[in-house]
Amino acid sequence: MSQQDAEHAFFIKSIYDHSLGEGECDTWLQYLSDTIGGRLAGSEASLEAVHYTQKVLKSIDIVDTAWLQPCEVPLWDRGPQKEIVRIQYDGQQIELNALALGNSEGTGEGGVTGQVIEVNGLDTLELLGEAELKGKIVFFNRAMDPTKVRTFHAYGEAVDQRVYGAARASKYGAAAVLVRSMTTNKDDFPHTGVQLYGDSEPIPSIAISTNDADRLSTLLNSHTVEAYIENYAQMLEPVQSYNVIAEIRGSTHPDEIILVGGHLDSWDVGGGAHDDGAGCVHSIQVIHTLNALGYKPKRTIRCVMFMNEENGLGGGLAYAEASNAAGEFHLAAIESDAGGFTPRGFACSADAEVFKPYLANLQSFDKFLDPYDLFLKAGGGGADIGPLKSQKGLLIGLRPDSQRYFDFHHTEADVFANVNVRELKLGAAAMTSLVYLIDQFGL
Amino acid sequence: MSQQDAEHAFFIKSIYDHSLGEGECDTWLQYLSDTIGGRLAGSEASLEAVHYTQKVLKSIDIVDTAWLQPCEVPLWDRGPQKEIVRIQYDGQQIELNALALGNSEGTGEGGVTGQVIEVNGLDTLELLGEAELKGKIVFFNRAMDPTKVRTFHAYGEAVDQRVYGAARASKYGAAAVLVRSMTTNKDDFPHTGVQLYGDSEPIPSIAISTNDADRLSTLLNSHTVEAYIENYAQMLEPVQSYNVIAEIRGSTHPDEIILVGGHLDSWDVGGGAHDDGAGCVHSIQVIHTLNALGYKPKRTIRCVMFMNEENGLGGGLAYAEASNAAGEFHLAAIESDAGGFTPRGFACSADAEVFKPYLANLQSFDKFLDPYDLFLKAGGGGADIGPLKSQKGLLIGLRPDSQRYFDFHHTEADVFANVNVRELKLGAAAMTSLVYLIDQFGL
Repeated sequence: MSQQDAEHAFFIKSIYDHSLGEGECDTWLQYLSDTIGGRLAGSEASLEAVHYTQKVLKSIDIVDTAWLQPCEVPLWDRGPQKEIVRIQYDGQQIELNALALGNSEGTGEGGVTGQVIEVNGLDTLELLGEAELKGKIVFFNRAMDPTKVRTFHAYGEAVDQRVYGAARASKYGAAAVLVRSMTTNKDDFPHTGVQLYGDSEPIPSIAISTNDADRLSTLLNSHTVEAYIENYAQMLEPVQSYNVIAEIRGSTHPDEIILVGGHLDSWDVGGGAHDDGAGCVHSIQVIHTLNALGYKPKRTIRCVMFMNEENGLGGGLAYAEASNAAGEFHLAAIESDAGGFTPRGFACSADAEVFKPYLANLQSFDKFLDPYDLFLKAGGGGADIGPLKSQKGLLIGLRPDSQRYFDFHHTEADVFANVNVRELKLGAAAMTSLVYLIDQFGL
Repeated sequence: MSQQDAEHAFFIKSIYDHSLGEGECDTWLQYLSDTIGGRLAGSEASLEAVHYTQKVLKSIDIVDTAWLQPCEVPLWDRGPQKEIVRIQYDGQQIELNALALGNSEGTGEGGVTGQVIEVNGLDTLELLGEAELKGKIVFFNRAMDPTKVRTFHAYGEAVDQRVYGAARASKYGAAAVLVRSMTTNKDDFPHTGVQLYGDSEPIPSIAISTNDADRLSTLLNSHTVEAYIENYAQMLEPVQSYNVIAEIRGSTHPDEIILVGGHLDSWDVGGGAHDDGAGCVHSIQVIHTLNALGYKPKRTIRCVMFMNEENGLGGGLAYAEASNAAGEFHLAAIESDAGGFTPRGFACSADAEVFKPYLANLQSFDKFLDPYDLFLKAGGGGADIGPLKSQKGLLIGLRPDSQRYFDFHHTEADVFANVNVRELKLGAAAMTSLVYLIDQFGL
């Protein structure tokens, strides 16, 4: 290793030392997820989170400016009382662990009753058609594949029934849908998540726990089962919210922006600790660490906490629109939105025209990241930074270990107690190291 | 990728599919750690574990022979009642969270009382000498360094005070020692672990939790503190125990042994889930998976559950002695003894004469292991397989993610509930894949 490379390696070691030793991202995350709690876009809690994170960012000396960027977001309300899903067969009744999916309509008083028809994903639905589905409660029971080593692949394969199940069943006249929770675990937590009606008539759309899905499926083998559903969710008028942005102006290449970010909104249940409080505090920690080390960046480093990733992407779209209008160029955007687990590496993507040279340059960083067991691979990015693709910079997703993510994702268990502080801090150190390397070497 | 390589890659995918889908290592681990529980070498529980794992191995069709290999082990007894460590200052008393270190002597009735003298590791002890230490209770308070990314490095740096603290303090006439627990966490769990008197006069040697260590250290800044220690631990006469061994005889190279193993004994507190029930069930799962896939190995594959790794290495030494006496050759020995966390890769070592070519051959496996984000690096092995080094085969340690290991290590929290089943199964899949590759290609 050359003298110069040794100096870079030494700086990266100092990034890790600071992050693990004096990093404060655990303190910020505990406040976001335990004190503020679930913070659905448009909610009071989400505004508290906006003001809290802006205050933290403003308190860091190195930050030149910190501002709020307005964006319009949908406002969905789960309603004043807990969802009821009760199944009935042979004179018996069982209450299921249920949670309305995001953007779901409510049944209102009196609820909805119907026979339960199980389907194994969207395709099966087409085979049944209106004759079999009209007035029924469609139960989407396609399980996440436990043999996929990377759990996000299994999620990607199974989640279409959660997102589009209600819209598709509605077109055949179904009265409501129940959806198996998105996890490979067998447990009692229902997992919420976004669902989209598109141009379909809204019908109630409710997640049930995997244990309950298995129980229901077993019953359906030998019984006719009816379900009673009652919930009071509703979509209200859109409201204004904000992205939180802080910037350190670059000394020699101020027009090349390196963005680090996560999304500040979460679902209303739990504390949004892994999804995506972790990504927000990772990003703040990048700034905090660079400040503590007295680093003066060559390029502009911008920390962005996006609003409304979960049910609309209002923040990500508003950010890209404003950035494009201002003629900005994001050389790189790094999003952390896969939890506060031990980082395994980074995955990146870009416009086809510029991707290969970027990736090659990025791989020249391997020698600095290998001591920390971090890979650099193709194939990633993030929902909030996706709209920046047209600027032809590199879009990068932090890839933490994914094994435990769907233990907590979109449930009441996504709280600070389920975050390991060392693992969280390592994610911040990994992001800071990559920001440093891109700032030093370009792409 | 050649047709042949594609077939190897396909077989490895089927190893992962079986391990994650139908692997049973979680069932075995739950039995070992919850039903049998802590299983110190020589104890009744350790013999239950011997018979249980032998029964599991015998039930797997592919196993040609399964046998018990006798070994002599020390028998240490914590005593009939909980350790007491009570500190006293200014008329106040505080009970600390305490746990005698392995092999420690007891105080017996009446306990031991003495002034507490804090030292920052073994070197500081020398500076004080007999004048300052005679009759005192020496408090070793060197903390594990949180900035070490790999927690085993921090453990390696700080653990000498636990292993040798009592022996060294005893030479200066100290009455007893208290030792800060080996974890970077601030919590209330005392962590036990081996300590060795050598030729020193035995004195009681007790771990206290990190929170209590910090409290005691703070008090010592402004107060004279006395401690009262009472415990009833004792070393009994050595007893006979066993390594559990199962073998699949190789079809074309039966004299080249590939060993997979872990250690069956654990400390008496907790359930020895991560340390090292995980390594035992990883190793059984290797055999179970190869059986399920109908694999016929070319080389001899041997699964060994070693006894007495924690406080004597009786099993590992007996195994190597018998193996050498029989003129055996272990081409490779893979030990899992770092917990049931997501595997990051493998680290290996060997006699200097043969190491470089082995490592080069091993790295030709990268293309098969890279899709599973597994590295192959120099610098590992395992305590139980270490004595096989003279056979000039390759010694390999599974390297799981280490961030959470010292949350549980040697405490009552090392139970099955703190193991993530997917992470556990991935460790088994990684080991099985490496066994397959070595069996197919040699080294």
